[in-house]
Amino acid sequence: MNTEPVYVAGQWRPSHASGTFQADNPATKNPLADVYPISSWADVDEALDAAVEAADALRNVPGEQIGLFLELYAALIEAQRAPLVAMAHAETALPVRPRLAEVELPRTSGQLREAARAARTGSWLLPTIDTKLNIRSCHAPLGPVWVFGPNNFPFAFNSIAGGDFAAAIATGNPVIAKANTSHPGTTRLLALAAAQAAHEAGLPKGTVQLLYRIGHEDGARAVADARVGATAYTGSRAAGLVLKAAADRAGKPIYLELSSVNPVVILPGAIQTRGEQIAGEFVTSCLMGTGQFCTNPGLVILLEGAETEKFVAAVADKFRQAPVGTLLSSGVERTLAANLRKLVAGGAQILVGETPAAGAGYSHANTLLRVGGAKFLADPERFQTEAFGNASLVVTARSNAEAAQIIDALEGNLTGCFYADAGGNDETLYSQLAPRLRRRVGRLLNDKMPTGVAVSSAMNHGGPFPATGHPGFTAVGIPAALRRFTALECYDNVPAHRLPAALANKNPTGTMWRLIDGNWSQADVTAA
Amino acid sequence: MNTEPVYVAGQWRPSHASGTFQADNPATKNPLADVYPISSWADVDEALDAAVEAADALRNVPGEQIGLFLELYAALIEAQRAPLVAMAHAETALPVRPRLAEVELPRTSGQLREAARAARTGSWLLPTIDTKLNIRSCHAPLGPVWVFGPNNFPFAFNSIAGGDFAAAIATGNPVIAKANTSHPGTTRLLALAAAQAAHEAGLPKGTVQLLYRIGHEDGARAVADARVGATAYTGSRAAGLVLKAAADRAGKPIYLELSSVNPVVILPGAIQTRGEQIAGEFVTSCLMGTGQFCTNPGLVILLEGAETEKFVAAVADKFRQAPVGTLLSSGVERTLAANLRKLVAGGAQILVGETPAAGAGYSHANTLLRVGGAKFLADPERFQTEAFGNASLVVTARSNAEAAQIIDALEGNLTGCFYADAGGNDETLYSQLAPRLRRRVGRLLNDKMPTGVAVSSAMNHGGPFPATGHPGFTAVGIPAALRRFTALECYDNVPAHRLPAALANKNPTGTMWRLIDGNWSQADVTAA
Repeated sequence: MNTEPVYVAGQWRPSHASGTFQADNPATKNPLADVYPISSWADVDEALDAAVEAADALRNVPGEQIGLFLELYAALIEAQRAPLVAMAHAETALPVRPRLAEVELPRTSGQLREAARAARTGSWLLPTIDTKLNIRSCHAPLGPVWVFGPNNFPFAFNSIAGGDFAAAIATGNPVIAKANTSHPGTTRLLALAAAQAAHEAGLPKGTVQLLYRIGHEDGARAVADARVGATAYTGSRAAGLVLKAAADRAGKPIYLELSSVNPVVILPGAIQTRGEQIAGEFVTSCLMGTGQFCTNPGLVILLEGAETEKFVAAVADKFRQAPVGTLLSSGVERTLAANLRKLVAGGAQILVGETPAAGAGYSHANTLLRVGGAKFLADPERFQTEAFGNASLVVTARSNAEAAQIIDALEGNLTGCFYADAGGNDETLYSQLAPRLRRRVGRLLNDKMPTGVAVSSAMNHGGPFPATGHPGFTAVGIPAALRRFTALECYDNVPAHRLPAALANKNPTGTMWRLIDGNWSQADVTAA
Repeated sequence: MNTEPVYVAGQWRPSHASGTFQADNPATKNPLADVYPISSWADVDEALDAAVEAADALRNVPGEQIGLFLELYAALIEAQRAPLVAMAHAETALPVRPRLAEVELPRTSGQLREAARAARTGSWLLPTIDTKLNIRSCHAPLGPVWVFGPNNFPFAFNSIAGGDFAAAIATGNPVIAKANTSHPGTTRLLALAAAQAAHEAGLPKGTVQLLYRIGHEDGARAVADARVGATAYTGSRAAGLVLKAAADRAGKPIYLELSSVNPVVILPGAIQTRGEQIAGEFVTSCLMGTGQFCTNPGLVILLEGAETEKFVAAVADKFRQAPVGTLLSSGVERTLAANLRKLVAGGAQILVGETPAAGAGYSHANTLLRVGGAKFLADPERFQTEAFGNASLVVTARSNAEAAQIIDALEGNLTGCFYADAGGNDETLYSQLAPRLRRRVGRLLNDKMPTGVAVSSAMNHGGPFPATGHPGFTAVGIPAALRRFTALECYDNVPAHRLPAALANKNPTGTMWRLIDGNWSQADVTAA
């Protein structure tokens, strides 16, 4: 059987492979037919060289042309919906409908189109002009970007089609995509479309490149290479921290999305007035995609009491009755079981979910655990172990003060939620607890589960370490997410004819927002 | 003799000292009278606890009150100009006039007032509102900030009065200042004023704290402590990289300004038409403050030729004739001599500056070195050794292509300059070389030396590693510099009465700029 070629420097060519791998179908546990290469450093090296050339050339490519690429690509993805969805379903066992075909694929093409708009309008540039001193600055591309995508969104966070890809490209950077090894076939199909769109849009060779897999040492070397601008990584905390250490040592920006248990605090008034409804919302959010969302609610904080017992019983009941989904891979199955054992070993009680493998293919019984606040506080690190999958941990606090302590013991998370009584009866407790949770999460939600991550300019899909590597950045939300892949470039006393268009006196698009002498404006600069 | 107390948790109290130190007068090499403590971990620990309390309290302090503090502080600094300038002069040997009294001190109070305006207007918040989805986000304080200030600006970059301090405070973060050990007395006087202003403005205890010195291990531990929000460090590359490694491992943001040789490229047409004038500008910039500016032009790139020889001779002549200034410390004297030896050992030729100590106090002869392009390219790392002080290295390229190679071999720098013929004769060469230098520097200047760092909204006092730790941030320029000390905080489906003022429908100041549904606006949000 032939090993699939890699896409380097504008060519599909055989990999300088050090080995091969196959993905498997999580629903059957059988390997899929296609064989993919594990690239040696020679592939990485060539890709980096090509990316540097592309980065240079892209500096002279107008945003309009980059926008065209992103739109052509979005259209190709939609045109190839059927094979893409079939392949992603085979590789991930995620449901075809609505998930892959009707939710994730349109989200992906939508994100690409939104990035296209940003590339065209320059909304990410933050042009800042001091007319008195003739000092002008704006953001600019950083250089070649590595994207390491996660296993759980084969389209929307795919290394070669997802949010990080779109953000890096829209800001004029070439991307070297490292496929997630659990869906190489989906990534290959996307790369074919990306390559075609890049060709049609006339982008430099090496703007988009694909490797399927590289060794761990080569990965650490790759993100630290002098030719690299930055790296975006979404995946396991352990692997992410290895890349972070390597990139940090070399002074290379790296944006990480590592892990998050997404605490949900349900206040007593909410449980009392609409406990049954919230139990339903919670279980739906928890088991959606077999619990394999970055923002899956893995930790629920409740105040002890009779109504809380009823709530927990209702949740347990729903967990028991819900169908058991398929997990993304043997690795997810193994890690979920191991992490649940770790929670149980610490003293968490199993409410639902005795059996390790309970469904078709890779799977684990829907699992609900419970631990008391005092026990949680005795070993908060253990009880924040992310059990990625269809599992959640209920923590019951004996008092408001204990609930506050539990929140204070939380690590950085992507999200945190409060459910409160609509009539205002939880307001005092909310005002005591919310400020504590606020600084531990990137996005604070009220009366809403965290699993939805709207593509909104105001979204923050980020949060304090270890949820991500830096609390000031978001991976979703345009234009903020785009600025991760940019440098601030200042022009001091540079004459008009040598300035980039965004900093010229004349507004380059007629509608670009620029900060001129402290005020945001779409006007031209009146000659200084 | 008594050891000076530290300022912790709102009290001047004896340090839990592990030792003491004294500054000396660089002009006489004699120790100054006052004795300062080297803090043990116990001081650090108490300061961190107090800072955490202050950080919590500051969340409820309006920007108006923080602005008041910054303005009271600026006024106190100006009221105490005479003792401050006298102390700074004794500790640094920097000239009283114009430098300390007429330039740096007013710059410092001016920066504090500009930060006050930012605190009041919220210009740093970037409020972003999606009215359709009711998702709203803005920047928010990060938590306690360590500021490690440099030796070369006893006021304007002082740990407890300079740009980093002002930026961290204006965004609602407490600061623990670690004094630069070469000017502890100046820092003490500033801290007295800061403490008084904080008291008068009613800020929480622990908003402003001062330690004079801590051990290296405690420093690394301090920046990585779980209680810390972020660190700002300006100083030597070696010490900075140790702190960076510690902070990075703990996932704590750290902003560094490490080193920069600030390349100046003088194109042939400029030399031909106004070589003598540029030679004067260059030497003035080079020797200003005895060359101890972060943006001191330490590397000049010239094209070989007869006019260039005349230019170099003119520069050498001026170096020889210029008075020899005093260096900031024995350490600067020692390091300058060592780094010059390193350049000479690599083959750089000494044009001016045989004698190590040539002036009063700590000093070194004004030193001009020269190396050919081929030699530079054989060991570019060595020839980019920053010789901090009154020294500069001329690199002569044999051809335009060699000049391009030299620029391509440059590390990240804060600034880069081009001088070109005003008549347009250098335009082609500029267009070949400038894009290469552009991506290696934070600020690109034309026909202007880099030593001036205007306090401008469009300024970038930053640049690619190793000049700083991240190319997207600046240490000077409001509001951008302020955002270093912030987290992005998103509110999803949060009802109006629980939103921070910046995200309410009503514009909180009537003039705050907010990004509402993709457009910058000072209006209220029309109810969604």
